[in-house]
Amino acid sequence: MTAFADRHIGTTAAAQWTMLSALGIERGDGSESPVDALMRRAVPQSIWRDAAAASTLPVAASEAEALAELRALASRNTVNRSMIGLGYYGTHTPSVIQRNILENPSWYTAYTPYQPEISQGRLEALINFQTMVAELTGLSTANASMLDESTAAAEGMLLARRASKVASDVFAVDADAFPQTKALLATRADAVGIALVEVDLAGGEALPADLFGVFVQYPGASGRVWDPTAVIDTAHVAGAQVVVAADLLALTLLASPGALGADVAVGTTQRFGVPMGFGGPHAGYMAVRAGLERQLPGRLVGVSQDADGRPAYRLSLQTREQHIRREKATSNICTAQVLLAVMASMYAVYHGPEGLRKIASETAANAALLRDWLVEAGADVTHDAFFDTLTVRVPGRAAEYAQQARDGFGILLRVVDADTIGISVDETTTTTELHQVAMVFGGKQERVFGFADGAPNALPTALLRADSYLTHPVFHAHRSETAMMRYMKALADRDYALDRGMIPLGSCTMKLNAATEMAAITWPEFAGIHPFAPAADVEGYLELIDQLEAWLADVTGYDAVSLQPNAGSQGELAGLLAIRGYHLANGDEQRTACLIPSSAHGTNAASAVLAGMKVVVVACDDLGNVDLADLRAKIAAHAAELSALMITYPSTHGVYEHDVLDITAAVHEAGGQVYIDGANLNALLGYARFGDLGGDVSHLNLHKTFAIPHGGGGPGVGPVAAKAHLAPFLPSHPLAQRAEHAGGYTFEGGVVSAAPYGSAGILPISWAYVRMMGAAGLRTATAAAVLSANYIAARLEPHYPVLYTGENGRVAHECILDLRPLRDATGVTVDDVAKRLIDYGFHAPTMSFPVAGTLMVEPTESEDIGEIDRFIDAMIAIKQEADAVASGRWPADDNPLVNAPHTAAALLIGEWEHAYTREDAAYPVRSLVAGKYWPPVRRIDQAYGDRNLVCACPPIEAFA
Amino acid sequence: MTAFADRHIGTTAAAQWTMLSALGIERGDGSESPVDALMRRAVPQSIWRDAAAASTLPVAASEAEALAELRALASRNTVNRSMIGLGYYGTHTPSVIQRNILENPSWYTAYTPYQPEISQGRLEALINFQTMVAELTGLSTANASMLDESTAAAEGMLLARRASKVASDVFAVDADAFPQTKALLATRADAVGIALVEVDLAGGEALPADLFGVFVQYPGASGRVWDPTAVIDTAHVAGAQVVVAADLLALTLLASPGALGADVAVGTTQRFGVPMGFGGPHAGYMAVRAGLERQLPGRLVGVSQDADGRPAYRLSLQTREQHIRREKATSNICTAQVLLAVMASMYAVYHGPEGLRKIASETAANAALLRDWLVEAGADVTHDAFFDTLTVRVPGRAAEYAQQARDGFGILLRVVDADTIGISVDETTTTTELHQVAMVFGGKQERVFGFADGAPNALPTALLRADSYLTHPVFHAHRSETAMMRYMKALADRDYALDRGMIPLGSCTMKLNAATEMAAITWPEFAGIHPFAPAADVEGYLELIDQLEAWLADVTGYDAVSLQPNAGSQGELAGLLAIRGYHLANGDEQRTACLIPSSAHGTNAASAVLAGMKVVVVACDDLGNVDLADLRAKIAAHAAELSALMITYPSTHGVYEHDVLDITAAVHEAGGQVYIDGANLNALLGYARFGDLGGDVSHLNLHKTFAIPHGGGGPGVGPVAAKAHLAPFLPSHPLAQRAEHAGGYTFEGGVVSAAPYGSAGILPISWAYVRMMGAAGLRTATAAAVLSANYIAARLEPHYPVLYTGENGRVAHECILDLRPLRDATGVTVDDVAKRLIDYGFHAPTMSFPVAGTLMVEPTESEDIGEIDRFIDAMIAIKQEADAVASGRWPADDNPLVNAPHTAAALLIGEWEHAYTREDAAYPVRSLVAGKYWPPVRRIDQAYGDRNLVCACPPIEAFA
Repeated sequence: MTAFADRHIGTTAAAQWTMLSALGIERGDGSESPVDALMRRAVPQSIWRDAAAASTLPVAASEAEALAELRALASRNTVNRSMIGLGYYGTHTPSVIQRNILENPSWYTAYTPYQPEISQGRLEALINFQTMVAELTGLSTANASMLDESTAAAEGMLLARRASKVASDVFAVDADAFPQTKALLATRADAVGIALVEVDLAGGEALPADLFGVFVQYPGASGRVWDPTAVIDTAHVAGAQVVVAADLLALTLLASPGALGADVAVGTTQRFGVPMGFGGPHAGYMAVRAGLERQLPGRLVGVSQDADGRPAYRLSLQTREQHIRREKATSNICTAQVLLAVMASMYAVYHGPEGLRKIASETAANAALLRDWLVEAGADVTHDAFFDTLTVRVPGRAAEYAQQARDGFGILLRVVDADTIGISVDETTTTTELHQVAMVFGGKQERVFGFADGAPNALPTALLRADSYLTHPVFHAHRSETAMMRYMKALADRDYALDRGMIPLGSCTMKLNAATEMAAITWPEFAGIHPFAPAADVEGYLELIDQLEAWLADVTGYDAVSLQPNAGSQGELAGLLAIRGYHLANGDEQRTACLIPSSAHGTNAASAVLAGMKVVVVACDDLGNVDLADLRAKIAAHAAELSALMITYPSTHGVYEHDVLDITAAVHEAGGQVYIDGANLNALLGYARFGDLGGDVSHLNLHKTFAIPHGGGGPGVGPVAAKAHLAPFLPSHPLAQRAEHAGGYTFEGGVVSAAPYGSAGILPISWAYVRMMGAAGLRTATAAAVLSANYIAARLEPHYPVLYTGENGRVAHECILDLRPLRDATGVTVDDVAKRLIDYGFHAPTMSFPVAGTLMVEPTESEDIGEIDRFIDAMIAIKQEADAVASGRWPADDNPLVNAPHTAAALLIGEWEHAYTREDAAYPVRSLVAGKYWPPVRRIDQAYGDRNLVCACPPIEAFA
Repeated sequence: MTAFADRHIGTTAAAQWTMLSALGIERGDGSESPVDALMRRAVPQSIWRDAAAASTLPVAASEAEALAELRALASRNTVNRSMIGLGYYGTHTPSVIQRNILENPSWYTAYTPYQPEISQGRLEALINFQTMVAELTGLSTANASMLDESTAAAEGMLLARRASKVASDVFAVDADAFPQTKALLATRADAVGIALVEVDLAGGEALPADLFGVFVQYPGASGRVWDPTAVIDTAHVAGAQVVVAADLLALTLLASPGALGADVAVGTTQRFGVPMGFGGPHAGYMAVRAGLERQLPGRLVGVSQDADGRPAYRLSLQTREQHIRREKATSNICTAQVLLAVMASMYAVYHGPEGLRKIASETAANAALLRDWLVEAGADVTHDAFFDTLTVRVPGRAAEYAQQARDGFGILLRVVDADTIGISVDETTTTTELHQVAMVFGGKQERVFGFADGAPNALPTALLRADSYLTHPVFHAHRSETAMMRYMKALADRDYALDRGMIPLGSCTMKLNAATEMAAITWPEFAGIHPFAPAADVEGYLELIDQLEAWLADVTGYDAVSLQPNAGSQGELAGLLAIRGYHLANGDEQRTACLIPSSAHGTNAASAVLAGMKVVVVACDDLGNVDLADLRAKIAAHAAELSALMITYPSTHGVYEHDVLDITAAVHEAGGQVYIDGANLNALLGYARFGDLGGDVSHLNLHKTFAIPHGGGGPGVGPVAAKAHLAPFLPSHPLAQRAEHAGGYTFEGGVVSAAPYGSAGILPISWAYVRMMGAAGLRTATAAAVLSANYIAARLEPHYPVLYTGENGRVAHECILDLRPLRDATGVTVDDVAKRLIDYGFHAPTMSFPVAGTLMVEPTESEDIGEIDRFIDAMIAIKQEADAVASGRWPADDNPLVNAPHTAAALLIGEWEHAYTREDAAYPVRSLVAGKYWPPVRRIDQAYGDRNLVCACPPIEAFA
């Protein structure tokens, strides 16, 4: 069987030699492989790591072998029936959604919808998501999802501080909040100087007099449902903002946070059809009251209009984002959980309000039935009012009951403490299971099951929900599986994903997401596991995690790896918090200065701020490299307070800086730590290691380098890798199955994700990628990616200047095409070129990052020479079109570029009154006749949407 | 959770009342459900079965419950490593093919490509398949697949008889042929008066002097590879035709059948990436030498051209097909195994000739290595020349060795007889497994595995293949997974399947193929099982088969069911053979007359001929019903020789005949048996039962009524169901795990499929469908389907006359729209309307069947009222367009109808010189602007392709 690496890497050796020839590198005596032939010339000798260097990675497995090993690992997990709750519940993923979204590359290989014209399908799904969240929470605006409930709570806390006028650092936390949320809030509060105060809100304990915000869990972790109106009113009187974490399913029956007066609602949408997956990924949510829209972190989809004035979706208010606000950013969140948000939104579309209400009613009725049976058995059930969760007092016997339930019935109960058991029912709970739980507590052995619709629940009448929700037609039109399948297909057909062609996004590494890599994530043994399941149930997961940690440490030259951060931004934060912890442990409390080159991605600065650091900007030279002199000056100026340097390698300009060892040495000499941003690891893997470059800590992007699909804008996974001295400060988790990690390290740092291993459910993807590539395959992939970027640079250089090359004239894995001269000469902008690429059947490269007026192109190793040439040819043809504008053949305000992209309808309806032909517009190259992607809308007016902010489903009539 | 039936059935109760209102049926007092309200009026009272009638079906399971039960059944299968061979081998299904073809509704819900303009994707895949088969077999033309290898061999035998000029009934069969093929040939030969003679060809035994054909297995079942040239030459001298069953993987290394002189090659493509699935479905193949093309049974894809003269694919030579030739048909094959053929062709596209050759070389080298180890251990290996299969003589100990291999290593060997073991290696065999096998035979415990590329094999040098194959670019362009994924996506994008919209095909019942139903078929416990695995390994399968047999018997009113026939046509044949067997057992050898109404589907007559019967046509009245008087006359005329009556109920005209009980009684009175064709069971299920109508035997179409997807033209499954007196004559199988069937019946009839349970691998689909619908759900589905058909008939009647309604003015599950008045008035033909529907975003209904000049519409129960209304509106709009032609607004030779379908390129390239606008062409209704399916080619010239027969990949330049 063909080696997986040869399937993953698009270019054959023969193609690689052809490409090298275009770079002026000839085959020579054949002693060198084509990939090494280039890498010798591109990668600085000082950091070069030989192919023969020791590696602990196993020899590459075939696809069949990897699947067999994954099945063996899966068989070591035990899918017990979780009643643990705490934000993770059993749910029925509708098969039609699993197959047509989660298992469909049209959805999972899509990129973040920065090019809205070719992303209308997933943008509609996200608008549905926002509408669903906003209406269920009773607030005006929801964003396109958060990383998880606990990080959403932290973002809510930060938002409350920004929105509150009170000059207090105190944030009150509900004593009945989820333990993982409390732990994460503590980590995040500590870093930015917020004082957390735990208050028994339901028990009537008073709020602190002076506070900027309150966090309420609704219903509480104990299951208790109580009316927080008085607390909210009190907080408001004190000038504080109120953040309510609410269970979305409960909200189909209960008064909404908005109705109760909350300013912000957060939570998770996991139980809307997304498997537990040992903790994630799931879509967290955040919604805010009117007036706070522009404070929302994360991504926000809004409605704007296209060139024809027709409604069209796109990302709103992007100027809030960290990559623009940098050290002034208020959040470092730069992604969402799009794939999971899409799934959750489709669950609501499929069930509709009446279906969701039915699911919730049955769940609540089951909980009430269980309470009755437990009380009948003499159990001490703590609360009278609850939705789905009961707390039972069993003094000194909690562990014993939990063990009985697991051993006797395969049911997992929550051991709250030695005296207390928690039991959560959900959509999947059967009456048989309720009976089994009751028997654990001494209930009757024999019972006649009769369970009618409309059975009583234990919700307080005063809190029952009266208003309607999900009234938009989209939540009513797709009740049959056939209709549902077609709706998802129609949306997918509007979008451009990797299954159509190249997505050459600089810094985003849109490589193959292989079907074999994706196979295991939907197996029940991986998908059906609660994140707080006992260690004995998750041996397979823990082994997989151990292996992946060890492999990632090996390939990056670090000692320890934490997989907890569920996005690159969170990995950054975790890494910086580790540095912070290290300095604090050394008594160096004053070390808070973080040096960041001016060329860095804005998220670096945002993360530094959230880690309690002060950002000091270091200049870059004309090539985009760190200005060594300025670096030394800044170090000198901040010597005593130097905490860290954050750099990206290769640089954000796509160049291998030759001075990197000097740079890291200088920081170390001054007592600082070096943070290397792993965004560009795809240009380095196998040829050099961050640890060997002087890095102390890095985050990696499994969704860039390690084949986790982008999912249309999430999930991401951002492990943090560190040298041994930082290992103790890597993330821990209060509910983790174990404290030890690969290499024997024990982590004791703060919590950065809701689940102990973050988005564990998708780690099989990266595991399979590494397992099937092996060390040699990973190395070859790097070189193939670098070769493709250099080939594009070389072939396009005659048409578009290439900005930034290394000392040897080579780029790394991406190249920046400077379109400013073109604009100056022809008036044609980067936008015009990007949109015109759509007409040619391409996703545009990254626009105006890191330099305004440029396109950054990263072909990755997975594209073959045919597709790369097709892209090059398109870019050259577009240049010729621009020249035609310059030469006056086409007017500057009416040509195929400024009017791009062209929809079929725009070309076919009505008279044609343009200076160019329909054929010019649609078929600039002949190959498009055989099959063409048609964008569903014309160019979208970004500013209009920000001026007229609409972030929920527009009425059907708007499309008429 | 919503009941599955409510997801499967598209119309809600509210919609059903709306539709009933259009039929003039009002809600009344609410005592009757909307579906019964119609059915009371449509179904004759004489056959009505009450909802409360006894049923042994279990109460409907939810989707989650059905999946759980399937997992429990799966866990009772044991996936041992099969080395049984006999045409079924382990294979690595490339994950990218599994995910993007087998698990993708765009492929599996597609219909047979009768509308070629919207089927270019799968037609290209089939052309690839035909090219692959033709080139590997070295013959000029291959068809688009056969049902399996053994039925292909039978068709080869029949073809040889047709093609031979010799007046002999003797067909010589290689003694080394697969046992299941021998058994099937015997069944089929016996029915049509062919005398089979088994000859030890490899052993040098002489052919009979007088014969019309020879069948050679190459390599033999024993694994032996020998040169059949002399046998072939001898046969040719005698005027006989030679059919060679060849292993396609072996042919990448071995001289092709064509090179050896064969006239016909048959076989299976299973090991090209299609899981064994306990016997199927797989794509069998047939290829023929030049001159025999028009003799090919089954489907044949060819290249023709569209209205622009550009190459376009479509089905060739359809006039050969049974539905046209009826009793003159030479084969009753009316489907192919398209989905599996597509998979196999993609396997060849992905691996290319060099990859296939490598797989074959490794397989052959592994076999040779095993031989060496066995010989070293003292084993008696029978043959010196072999590809992948060894035969070992172990006098008296075969069972013991097989048991040791299974118990010790989980390896299944073939017990040929008490003294002989067969061992087949394949693509998936590991050196460890070879070692384990060797140890069973006393080989060394310790061994150093070193296995180099290019290791020796045991193929005879004289038979090594020298010519090249698969040279077309398509077999070289898609080596990376990314490229492969995009190729399959690009093809899928050209096609119209159920995921885009309704496919209202009369008599084909294109209902939902639910994702939950499809889930289990790719689980290893179902997919990875050899059809001749020991009974202990397949308990789950046998239980599932038992249950499905019992359920199907229950819902049809029969006693016994065989799931062996792997297509409806084979079910027909099996049913007729059962009748034949019954009469023979009664000594009624003269009973060979089969009465068939003139309205019957042509396959009925073809099957009757193949069952050795004489067709007697019975007239129909003006309503399409059997003319009772003529029936009585024909019975009287053929009283002594009356074997059977074949009728379809409801009739092929979509009508519930009121006389059915009189008809069946008349046949019974005359000593005949009644065969009821199950094609239209979707109009009856739950409301009446074939057994209660007087049927003695029926075939069912699981791919019509029981939710198995059409797969673009296969797989089908055609179980045969019979009353107890016919049960002994239902299909048996020499290698079946057991002879007993549900209800305690033992079948002893002839073999009709290669595998004991036919296409067992997809039976979980129908099992899940019945399990989730329950008796009530099945009944409601029937009524919903009938309601939708009547609603369409009622709404379209003012625009198109509806042909044939029952005595009560109702149609059954389909309606026939008469377009002949339209043609007479406007010149617009059925073709024009069908192709114009493509522009409106629809798949055309069945054209000109059962009546020329009509469209037969079957919406099925799965379409919702929105989609049905969209179809009705399109049909009305098309009528208005036709009226515009009639009124002279548009010329008869230049209007949107005659030029339909319109491609985007045809609308956009060049000047527009038509009498109607581009907008008229593309957007006749406004909703298409939001998203439109664009056909990839214009109308295809059918006749051109038949005149210029090209059935392999055209050169790339043809598309320039």
